[in-house]
Amino acid sequence: MTSAPPPHTGSASPPYADTGLLAPEWGLSAAASETGDHAYLRALLDAEAALTRAQAALGLVPAEAATAVTEAAVPGRFGIRGLAARTPDGGNPVIPLVRDLTREVGEEYGPYVHRGATSQDIMDTATMLVAVRTLGPVLADLGRTERALAGLAAEHRDTVLPGRTLTQHAVPTTFGLKAAGWRSLVLDARDRVTRVRGSLPVQLGGAAGTLAAFQAYGTEDATALVRAYAREAGLAAPVLPWHTLRTPIADLAGCLAFTAGALGKLAADVLTLSRTEIGEVSEGDGGGSSAMPHKANPVRSALLAAAARRAPQLAATLYGSLVAEDERPAGAWHAEWTPLRDLLRLAGGAAGHAAGLAEGLRVHPAAMRRNLDATRGLIVSERLSAALSPVLGRARAKQLVTELARRAHAEDRPLRELLGEQDDLPDLDLDDLSDPAHYTGFAATLTDRALERR
Amino acid sequence: MTSAPPPHTGSASPPYADTGLLAPEWGLSAAASETGDHAYLRALLDAEAALTRAQAALGLVPAEAATAVTEAAVPGRFGIRGLAARTPDGGNPVIPLVRDLTREVGEEYGPYVHRGATSQDIMDTATMLVAVRTLGPVLADLGRTERALAGLAAEHRDTVLPGRTLTQHAVPTTFGLKAAGWRSLVLDARDRVTRVRGSLPVQLGGAAGTLAAFQAYGTEDATALVRAYAREAGLAAPVLPWHTLRTPIADLAGCLAFTAGALGKLAADVLTLSRTEIGEVSEGDGGGSSAMPHKANPVRSALLAAAARRAPQLAATLYGSLVAEDERPAGAWHAEWTPLRDLLRLAGGAAGHAAGLAEGLRVHPAAMRRNLDATRGLIVSERLSAALSPVLGRARAKQLVTELARRAHAEDRPLRELLGEQDDLPDLDLDDLSDPAHYTGFAATLTDRALERR
Amino acid sequence: MTSAPPPHTGSASPPYADTGLLAPEWGLSAAASETGDHAYLRALLDAEAALTRAQAALGLVPAEAATAVTEAAVPGRFGIRGLAARTPDGGNPVIPLVRDLTREVGEEYGPYVHRGATSQDIMDTATMLVAVRTLGPVLADLGRTERALAGLAAEHRDTVLPGRTLTQHAVPTTFGLKAAGWRSLVLDARDRVTRVRGSLPVQLGGAAGTLAAFQAYGTEDATALVRAYAREAGLAAPVLPWHTLRTPIADLAGCLAFTAGALGKLAADVLTLSRTEIGEVSEGDGGGSSAMPHKANPVRSALLAAAARRAPQLAATLYGSLVAEDERPAGAWHAEWTPLRDLLRLAGGAAGHAAGLAEGLRVHPAAMRRNLDATRGLIVSERLSAALSPVLGRARAKQLVTELARRAHAEDRPLRELLGEQDDLPDLDLDDLSDPAHYTGFAATLTDRALERR
Amino acid sequence: MTSAPPPHTGSASPPYADTGLLAPEWGLSAAASETGDHAYLRALLDAEAALTRAQAALGLVPAEAATAVTEAAVPGRFGIRGLAARTPDGGNPVIPLVRDLTREVGEEYGPYVHRGATSQDIMDTATMLVAVRTLGPVLADLGRTERALAGLAAEHRDTVLPGRTLTQHAVPTTFGLKAAGWRSLVLDARDRVTRVRGSLPVQLGGAAGTLAAFQAYGTEDATALVRAYAREAGLAAPVLPWHTLRTPIADLAGCLAFTAGALGKLAADVLTLSRTEIGEVSEGDGGGSSAMPHKANPVRSALLAAAARRAPQLAATLYGSLVAEDERPAGAWHAEWTPLRDLLRLAGGAAGHAAGLAEGLRVHPAAMRRNLDATRGLIVSERLSAALSPVLGRARAKQLVTELARRAHAEDRPLRELLGEQDDLPDLDLDDLSDPAHYTGFAATLTDRALERR
Repeated sequence: MTSAPPPHTGSASPPYADTGLLAPEWGLSAAASETGDHAYLRALLDAEAALTRAQAALGLVPAEAATAVTEAAVPGRFGIRGLAARTPDGGNPVIPLVRDLTREVGEEYGPYVHRGATSQDIMDTATMLVAVRTLGPVLADLGRTERALAGLAAEHRDTVLPGRTLTQHAVPTTFGLKAAGWRSLVLDARDRVTRVRGSLPVQLGGAAGTLAAFQAYGTEDATALVRAYAREAGLAAPVLPWHTLRTPIADLAGCLAFTAGALGKLAADVLTLSRTEIGEVSEGDGGGSSAMPHKANPVRSALLAAAARRAPQLAATLYGSLVAEDERPAGAWHAEWTPLRDLLRLAGGAAGHAAGLAEGLRVHPAAMRRNLDATRGLIVSERLSAALSPVLGRARAKQLVTELARRAHAEDRPLRELLGEQDDLPDLDLDDLSDPAHYTGFAATLTDRALERR
Repeated sequence: MTSAPPPHTGSASPPYADTGLLAPEWGLSAAASETGDHAYLRALLDAEAALTRAQAALGLVPAEAATAVTEAAVPGRFGIRGLAARTPDGGNPVIPLVRDLTREVGEEYGPYVHRGATSQDIMDTATMLVAVRTLGPVLADLGRTERALAGLAAEHRDTVLPGRTLTQHAVPTTFGLKAAGWRSLVLDARDRVTRVRGSLPVQLGGAAGTLAAFQAYGTEDATALVRAYAREAGLAAPVLPWHTLRTPIADLAGCLAFTAGALGKLAADVLTLSRTEIGEVSEGDGGGSSAMPHKANPVRSALLAAAARRAPQLAATLYGSLVAEDERPAGAWHAEWTPLRDLLRLAGGAAGHAAGLAEGLRVHPAAMRRNLDATRGLIVSERLSAALSPVLGRARAKQLVTELARRAHAEDRPLRELLGEQDDLPDLDLDDLSDPAHYTGFAATLTDRALERR
Repeated sequence: MTSAPPPHTGSASPPYADTGLLAPEWGLSAAASETGDHAYLRALLDAEAALTRAQAALGLVPAEAATAVTEAAVPGRFGIRGLAARTPDGGNPVIPLVRDLTREVGEEYGPYVHRGATSQDIMDTATMLVAVRTLGPVLADLGRTERALAGLAAEHRDTVLPGRTLTQHAVPTTFGLKAAGWRSLVLDARDRVTRVRGSLPVQLGGAAGTLAAFQAYGTEDATALVRAYAREAGLAAPVLPWHTLRTPIADLAGCLAFTAGALGKLAADVLTLSRTEIGEVSEGDGGGSSAMPHKANPVRSALLAAAARRAPQLAATLYGSLVAEDERPAGAWHAEWTPLRDLLRLAGGAAGHAAGLAEGLRVHPAAMRRNLDATRGLIVSERLSAALSPVLGRARAKQLVTELARRAHAEDRPLRELLGEQDDLPDLDLDDLSDPAHYTGFAATLTDRALERR
Repeated sequence: MTSAPPPHTGSASPPYADTGLLAPEWGLSAAASETGDHAYLRALLDAEAALTRAQAALGLVPAEAATAVTEAAVPGRFGIRGLAARTPDGGNPVIPLVRDLTREVGEEYGPYVHRGATSQDIMDTATMLVAVRTLGPVLADLGRTERALAGLAAEHRDTVLPGRTLTQHAVPTTFGLKAAGWRSLVLDARDRVTRVRGSLPVQLGGAAGTLAAFQAYGTEDATALVRAYAREAGLAAPVLPWHTLRTPIADLAGCLAFTAGALGKLAADVLTLSRTEIGEVSEGDGGGSSAMPHKANPVRSALLAAAARRAPQLAATLYGSLVAEDERPAGAWHAEWTPLRDLLRLAGGAAGHAAGLAEGLRVHPAAMRRNLDATRGLIVSERLSAALSPVLGRARAKQLVTELARRAHAEDRPLRELLGEQDDLPDLDLDDLSDPAHYTGFAATLTDRALERR
């Protein structure tokens, strides 16, 4: 392999390279190494080698050719930058790679490289390999996340905190139910990713999706060839070539955008609950500030939030690429590559950050208890209305609660105290009625039931 | 002014109303009537009535209350515009509707209206009802579409036309394979819509998702209540309240964006194939132009293309709303309503136009045959290379084909003629080799196999 | 059912109509009535009439024709729904409208209706009219907003509150500076909207942008015709027909998405500052909850947040429509109509809500003062580090501040108290140093300077 | 500089690095080297050095410190990968960079590094530097593009081809007018980019936008400091810190999405016109296919189309980041970095490809002439209607044209021939009337006028 890249040393990263400087969302995740140019090069070579092996398995090419291609298809023998530099010519990296790989394989078996295939066969298959390989760690991190959240939900099954709607305290809820809710989203993400991951197919269609060249080279049974290819590549076998039937890409878009959004919900809540004035949770390893040593920034949550802001629009681009004209489109296909890679990275980075966040999350029940009193007890006003109605009549009950709410605010006095001054409530247990911890409804049983899901 | 098909006078359309003037993508579809404000009002009322009935079924409210609410919950008794005008106050239409419905039900059973529920319980349940009702006709139209495409695929199993990649003729393919490909996308859409439609749940959580008010009013088993509600509403029963766990919305976003995109691919191909210079297909009922009587515009395809351009970004907004903070968010929820309605409409309108397009599509095999010659026979050059290699050696074969391609172009002569002048190709059947109709690979068997899918 | 403010009965709202039930973001705004189907119908008729008048002004058609068309072009004479129902046929509402208008004008002058024009000439011109008419009230509401914010900034020039970064208290700032910042975004929006509004052009190109039909009907100077049309319509005159040169649409997309986003920033801050635990501001007319009388929801802010979540994706669709093939595209143009209308509505509704929000905002300096102490004084740690460095050396200063931060937290004691126990800080004015109100930097002068902008 | 990156050699690009393998849209453009991690590192260092120099210029730090920082702020002394690896900790690359730069500057002047600033001051300023530096070549390439298009427009001012609407031939137009239209979009892009580029500001606000730390370190005039910083950095001076007032980012989003879309329109037309059946233009350096030597793919156009598909959604994410809460947001800011870089790259790559496309475009007037006959002359039916109306009356004229259109199609005969058989058209010059080249309206004068724009 000769097409020399520019001579760059380790300390001087080449000027055109991205190495994660702008990517704290996913920079150090498993997704980073599974989606770099190097990983794509490996997947492209794997796809070429699998194709030759599949043809050998059916007796269409010599077994030695399969061995030769497989042995040559090693990333270290190719210069990524040299390939990248020739990519714009034909618009994809497979064209120069086939040239280089053919040379590497040598004169005898070189002609069997890429035989019958079109660039898109290899590029799409490689993309599916990259996706499968990236989604492995993603699923592992989602698993870590859901287990940590299950632990939090169980531990805090009965830890009461204010339920908040439109930013205002509404009625009490439990931290267990919140954590169980986060977990249910993580499980939804896991289920969607798992389903899609298992369906990702090889691509094989030749120049225009008819596999005609394979026939010209002797293939008699296209289905058998596609199945052999799928087996060698470790992917599913499609019914039709999908050069312009982009269901696998759209399915990936959907499950990845869902994953980023689901984890974004977790982050949004942690960001709120860890606000200085609220302080109900904090990230275990919050980022610090040298100038302000009291600050512990919820960095993981911020990065999760950033990922969730970006993912939907990347998915939109991929859904848009369903509109792929002809037997291969002029632009729709090319427009998929970077957004799909970005989505894999964002989902991968997000899953990693979410696992770290969930495993390290510190919960502060005392702050929750303190915040429950922020409305001077009015957080239980809904219950009060329900309890007073049978006693006072619905209209009078509503009127009284409204009046007490007004006074609690105006006089800065707790509701319990004002209630005690009412002499028309003889038989009610006012301590019970006004205790936020006694008004959590079915939070605990909902939590239990949610935790039964595996 | 006389031409009005439905009997509305000009003055009847209030100035703020949208009645489809800007919406040819979906204006006359079943989705239009299932998603108008009237349909939402009906669904909101259905949700309220189902909730009261569910409580009655568990003995929590008098049976007469359920009857009274159900009888009152009739759209004709409510003024949509009056409701709409009060919607901005509290930010959603349920608040004024509950007030009006309570009044309609009357003094005795009015207090049982909306008991224990929060606005979002009703709004979300109504939205799911609207979705289920809209997706029924969508699935029916997808069914019409796939059947028509199956017919085209079978009929044109062996109709040859140029395969096109990056806008250029590549190798031949068949119209049957194209139609089978379109159909496979339609089936993918059908499967995704069907799966999601069957999973859409009622919403029930009360003020902050704990169902606490229901407990305060006597409910002992939250699960039983939710199941009864689901039964009455005809929706699925969720494990947890999903006020801020928006999986159902995201799932709808995904399957609807997929549907619009899948049909957009069909449209993109029809638009290309019906270009004046190509003329291989035409819409059966193409829109005309009074000034230019020769024009038959592919209007359905254009509207499908428009829908496919819009849907991904609407889905992106919905995926973005997964990031819904707290127990009810301040904005993320409100941002779902219109985009989800628009997506339902676009998918519904698109399915209707696709059915009409597929059922009416006129196919012009003669034009396909003519276009196959547009490259003077070079459309089979791939096959030629494969066939000449064993005879001439790979390098010489490639060189010869390149040379003939150059000459065919420069001398404006057909490849077959030039081939006939070569004296080093004695044993080849040049007529066979250069006939595009003999180089369709596995197109026919792929089509057969794809049509086995039901 | 009695509560209806405008007198419509339930049955009057046709089932397919949208009347704002799902649209609290903009339902009652001026933008609502300027962008309904009725407003579009009016604009379409205005465009037709202006075109005939322009031709009359150049002597190309009889003056009586211009009068006749202008008199007939009155929305009340046309049934919107009848038009809407015929829109899908040709894919746009102009085709049936021209037919109806021609009939209304009558036999003699009917032939002068729409003479030389293509549907897109009228549709685009009408769209520009709608935009100009909607942006008037938008600018007025932005003006109201910026004046109210200027008042808040001036009044609270020196009101100190915690500056927050990544959700955590950082250093103090002033509410004046916050309000001045919000205002600067509003002014940026105003400037961008104003610039775009002044540039919006009529459309005139005829069937394929050559104005050939106008020539066929006698026009000698295309520029003069376009200028006359622009004059009659009250829009700018373009250099070229812009059927597929969509700069005006993209410019609108940009300034409207900016407006929604700029106001979304205001809303995001109000939502945070009005959280129950923070309580530094509250909406003057927050929405209530009947079940929870203590709640005053920041409804306007939530609706602004919803608008800001939706606008960017609508703009994306419009930027996407720049890719409009040929002389008129099959889909890209149609895909503009609804997103542009939605963007106008969102920007219009948002401007109205922002004005109401800014004018009614209640500011709570006491809560700000209380929150400044939430970190036990550590909010001034940055200043402390700067002040101690010259005294103790940089390293020791940093170490001390870190240590004090740790102790303040662990011992739950104010920083000032701990500082007082240090005996190596003899010459420092510790009261001054630890007072958050004394560490607002250039907030006041920045506010003053920002307010100079008009 | 010691924080060692992993030891990678030239031939083995590190596994996490992107070097353009998936990026033919921009891989070899000037934008690639101006936006790589290396370019960002350089800009970050430039921002730090400019800040220290600005402080020195005002006498706030020793002149030697400015010199020392400037000399140390050289990219080669820092390991990008080492920085990247530490970026996730605090969520941005400035934190580790300040640490490393301080060490490089040494003990004496190290304390003056980053003095008073916050990470975002540096990151935002660096981002603006990157934008300015990238937009230089972008503008140069837009200039090349518009000049080439001007040349084409002038050369083909009178070259007639079919005008196409909704994919169908409508009336004739000229290639000059098409090229002039493309150019006008390029000029619109140039104007928007130029305006935004000239407005991009430095960022300086300190921890929460009050510049308080600068005051603590002795600054008396914040405005003077900001101006000095702007001068040193070569950027504009803002009125307010814009940590959460993101107008510059939104402005970039708008002009870059516009640029990509404007060039996407050019590409869409070239893709259509270079279809095998149309063949009116071809890319000068179209990508080839080894298997199909007759193919010359419009690769540049496909890559332009891909860029135009991606840009709008990236811009949407940036518009969404206007909603940046507090004094620094938790996610909105981080979500800007990669999308803005991608947009700069896409616009940069697109401008380069557009220049190459426009400069190399081959125009085939003979094919245009041939295609004008594709409708058997009906492309002039609009003119015919206008010409026959005064002779035959409007109704009869329309009827006749419709009838002739039908017959031309059914009998496969040219319109001219059928016209000649009509005996009621004595005085008309049928040759003139039916010549497409005589029905181009004002195409030529519109072209002339458009070319006057500079």
